[in-house]
Amino acid sequence: MYMYSFEQILQIIEPEIDRLKFDRRPQSLYLPIHYILSLGGKRIRPALMLMACNLYSEDIEKAIKPAIGMEIFHNFTLLHDDLMDMSEKRRNQLTVHKKWNANTAILSGDAMLILAYQFVSETSPTLLKPILDLFTQTALEICEGQQYDMEFETRQDVSEEEYIEMIRLKTAVLLACCLKSGALIGGATEEEANRLYQFGIHLGLAFQLQDDLLDTFGDPLTFGKNIGGDILCNKKTFLLIQTLKHASNEQKETIRHFQSHSNPAEKINAIKSVYENVGVRELTIDRIHDYYCRAMKELSNLNLPSGRLQTLNDTVDLLLRRKS
Amino acid sequence: MYMYSFEQILQIIEPEIDRLKFDRRPQSLYLPIHYILSLGGKRIRPALMLMACNLYSEDIEKAIKPAIGMEIFHNFTLLHDDLMDMSEKRRNQLTVHKKWNANTAILSGDAMLILAYQFVSETSPTLLKPILDLFTQTALEICEGQQYDMEFETRQDVSEEEYIEMIRLKTAVLLACCLKSGALIGGATEEEANRLYQFGIHLGLAFQLQDDLLDTFGDPLTFGKNIGGDILCNKKTFLLIQTLKHASNEQKETIRHFQSHSNPAEKINAIKSVYENVGVRELTIDRIHDYYCRAMKELSNLNLPSGRLQTLNDTVDLLLRRKS
Repeated sequence: MYMYSFEQILQIIEPEIDRLKFDRRPQSLYLPIHYILSLGGKRIRPALMLMACNLYSEDIEKAIKPAIGMEIFHNFTLLHDDLMDMSEKRRNQLTVHKKWNANTAILSGDAMLILAYQFVSETSPTLLKPILDLFTQTALEICEGQQYDMEFETRQDVSEEEYIEMIRLKTAVLLACCLKSGALIGGATEEEANRLYQFGIHLGLAFQLQDDLLDTFGDPLTFGKNIGGDILCNKKTFLLIQTLKHASNEQKETIRHFQSHSNPAEKINAIKSVYENVGVRELTIDRIHDYYCRAMKELSNLNLPSGRLQTLNDTVDLLLRRKS
Repeated sequence: MYMYSFEQILQIIEPEIDRLKFDRRPQSLYLPIHYILSLGGKRIRPALMLMACNLYSEDIEKAIKPAIGMEIFHNFTLLHDDLMDMSEKRRNQLTVHKKWNANTAILSGDAMLILAYQFVSETSPTLLKPILDLFTQTALEICEGQQYDMEFETRQDVSEEEYIEMIRLKTAVLLACCLKSGALIGGATEEEANRLYQFGIHLGLAFQLQDDLLDTFGDPLTFGKNIGGDILCNKKTFLLIQTLKHASNEQKETIRHFQSHSNPAEKINAIKSVYENVGVRELTIDRIHDYYCRAMKELSNLNLPSGRLQTLNDTVDLLLRRKS
């Protein structure tokens, strides 16, 4: 069976996204949709969907429309999240509500969610209901994750379990949904597809913790955003939660003191060095490795010839060894 | 065949809406959804859907879930529109973004749109794709209508055709969608269902023009909102557009003058009397009658025993002779 490489899959997805023409009117509603989709991004979700399909079928064509739907959905969440978080930049470009205004961001986002359903629905009649149900369940969970994330901003007592559940909802379930629905479209059994779902959950958790880690300890030269952004806005990341769990009273005091410190560079340096002293960097790397192993275990339980997993393995390596 | 009355249909719908339990977490995401759905409203859309189903089938049970989906969708549009229009009250209660905040209104609204898809999808597998496609098309059109509506606020040259197209998108297509999908679920042919769609378009246009008329010429005792609200905020309604089309230069000058007048009662009285002098009240009543006749013509072309249309006829009378 022909197995597509990650590169080849991206070369299928990118032109599909470029080619999207929302030539409905008014243009003012569809232009922001075209804009956010053209800002780029790793296209991980549609890529995982096509890869999962390719595990069971050479014909990945039939998964393209739903895969594009997942990417449209993901970008819808970015659009509305940026508005709610009042973020000004996304991939070094103005966010939609800054380039246009809040109402445009609300309404164009709503239209994107509807377009996502339109594309996800472009699947065979026998799979339509299960894929739709999974997508709906996933979409609700992502709203729930975003709600928790916003609520955590004003809470000081977020536990590790709560944080992991939040990132499971906000990040992991969409990867899992893409993998499971891709597998189903490829012809996988429910059992196999569920293994890929679990693989996606663990991959997503590892991916998000990696993101937390890079935001503080990444290489400024290769990391897309400014290093220390999470520290600056006192974001409750895995690093902060673990640090507060393991820190001495003195170290906790240092964190509290610098959280309201006005000089950004001093704040980042001081809190980062508490992180290092507590050993939270290693602790996070261990946890990422832990989720990585659980993800790999799910893959190894798939009922497939081992060579079939090459592309997915390559992609995991790429995602978890990434510097940006 | 047993034909349900409008009253009976409402007695089926209302408890279904009351019984909706969004017992997912976090509650903070689902409470605003419960709140807006409990504010009441005429439940016209699900009612029309069940009636259309009942034209072809005694078993209207099978249309209930999708009908509730349409009501959830309608309330989603109210929630996000209220935020975009910065409205403070809805049915004499605080709007969601006033009772909670803007972010809650955005995110709970998003979750409602997803829930709407969940309920609309609860239909037989053979009808799922056509009903989903119709719903998606309709939902996009409603976003387009809202975008036009917002753009008209800053334009002085909105034509009658543009206005009618805007209310077709913003109001009429959802009634039409409910009627067509209800008919399909009841077992109607595509041709019959399309006639009901056209009936819904003309009914919706008549309904919206009636709304414009009542806002200015309604009875303050029975009309739910304050009379003259549209005049106060210089809203481009059918009345204003027709007046500007038929008014003398002097009358136009009066309108322009009072549009920036600071005393609300004087403003309403002055502009209202230009409306009356131009004869736009009668002109609007004529147009409503015109759409009413076109709607009735579609009904008369349905391939049904004439007695079957009683409930739908009663409902049209109720809708177009309403005072609130």
